[in-house]
Amino acid sequence: MAKGLNRVYLVGTLTQDPEMRYTPGGLAVLELNLGGNDLITDESGSTRELAWYHRVKLLGKSAEFWGDSLKAGTALMVEGKLEYRSWEQDGQKKSSLEIRADRLEVVSLEGKRGDLTVTDARGQSRLREGLNHVLLAGNLTRDPELRYTPQGTAVTRFSLAVNERFTSKGTEQEKTHYVDAQAWRDLAEWAAELKKGDGAFLIGRLVNDSWTAQDGTRRYTTRVEVSRLERLARGAGSGGAGSQGAPQGAPKGRAGKVDIEEGLEDFPPEEDLPF
Amino acid sequence: MAKGLNRVYLVGTLTQDPEMRYTPGGLAVLELNLGGNDLITDESGSTRELAWYHRVKLLGKSAEFWGDSLKAGTALMVEGKLEYRSWEQDGQKKSSLEIRADRLEVVSLEGKRGDLTVTDARGQSRLREGLNHVLLAGNLTRDPELRYTPQGTAVTRFSLAVNERFTSKGTEQEKTHYVDAQAWRDLAEWAAELKKGDGAFLIGRLVNDSWTAQDGTRRYTTRVEVSRLERLARGAGSGGAGSQGAPQGAPKGRAGKVDIEEGLEDFPPEEDLPF
Repeated sequence: MAKGLNRVYLVGTLTQDPEMRYTPGGLAVLELNLGGNDLITDESGSTRELAWYHRVKLLGKSAEFWGDSLKAGTALMVEGKLEYRSWEQDGQKKSSLEIRADRLEVVSLEGKRGDLTVTDARGQSRLREGLNHVLLAGNLTRDPELRYTPQGTAVTRFSLAVNERFTSKGTEQEKTHYVDAQAWRDLAEWAAELKKGDGAFLIGRLVNDSWTAQDGTRRYTTRVEVSRLERLARGAGSGGAGSQGAPQGAPKGRAGKVDIEEGLEDFPPEEDLPF
Repeated sequence: MAKGLNRVYLVGTLTQDPEMRYTPGGLAVLELNLGGNDLITDESGSTRELAWYHRVKLLGKSAEFWGDSLKAGTALMVEGKLEYRSWEQDGQKKSSLEIRADRLEVVSLEGKRGDLTVTDARGQSRLREGLNHVLLAGNLTRDPELRYTPQGTAVTRFSLAVNERFTSKGTEQEKTHYVDAQAWRDLAEWAAELKKGDGAFLIGRLVNDSWTAQDGTRRYTTRVEVSRLERLARGAGSGGAGSQGAPQGAPKGRAGKVDIEEGLEDFPPEEDLPF
């Protein structure tokens, strides 16, 4: 599988005082609720502000360091990654996608002019000029699905398997994060050219969506609205104009042969997704 | 000093076949020349395409792996960092800022429509929809300088010290990368509010500039044109609205007290810079 890239950058304000809790094993977990606006320019050139609210987890020593020094209204910069988890519940496969922070900084708004925050219906304030920026590289778990809205706008959904390698207790481990992505208009038509197993690099913003499933329960999902998408060639030099075939003996994890089947059984069943 | 963040993402085409060379110590160095266009929207809402050409270095095993499989015209995605080097020459301090790749992927343009590349006057082709994306966090090495162009446009220049920690031969080492940055218009006025030593997080694009110095020699510099800039508070929770003072015993490198003086003597003298 292609070497994974999994980076999330957020700048927003805390919509409430963070909550600290501890796992049964004693690990500190600080939950931050960040809010901000994205400024989106559509194809007609008009812009609008879209609100986002994301929950960010900080673990261990970092959580203890920040502890209860952070209060609602504080502006923060977060660097982190998307963390996929799956589990069984009542015989059904469940999954979640969360943001785990590697780095946290308090952002000073002192000296900035204008209305810096927006207060929502719940009385929570979010940063007007938020930053919501995701960079990912991974492999498509299945062929993308191109659809059209009733207004005729093209929209393509696909899912990316993003692998992570880390060393735990001296041995190298591998974990796969599954991330849903969605592209609109021209980008949707380009995304539809990709195939299951293709490597992809994308940039986008993270959004939450909710809907009512066929069984009447409320479902939530987190996905990436794609603003840039590139298909990565399956071997070194195999896809670019004017390039040659892949060299022999490609090192593992560097544009070698894609082994996308590995681990795909972990992916949440289709019926659990909103499309 | 604030914990450094130093990430560069480029998507462009190779403007020429890469050159492989070896250092006296036997380390393989592959030099890639990438070209692309940035699509810039100015404050009046009009857009224009700006060309960029950047040299990227790949070292060691990665360089040997990619070797001569890459040819002019191939589209590549690069993830890397800005690498600052300084040396003495004829009693004068010289410095350079280069891009060092951590990761390289061949980008497949197959299935994309339209004119994907532009051929320049030298017959080299660059990617029309290039990606040129830099994320940095560090500390200002001096107070920013706000100036106005003859047309009255505000422009602020400043420099960021971005530190890097790494382990070499079992001991933790620290290196500082000095990066020049430039902001325009509203962002220039906000940048001018920052002070020497302040922590800053910025996003921008990397540009090359050249000019003729007072001694008649041609000078070159690489700097970041800033599209987003945040001031980081000097201690945990010290700067955000509604927050409290910094907790005691701040861990080193995590929003602790800023020790900006450290290492500043290494910074290139003012007269060597184009402003």
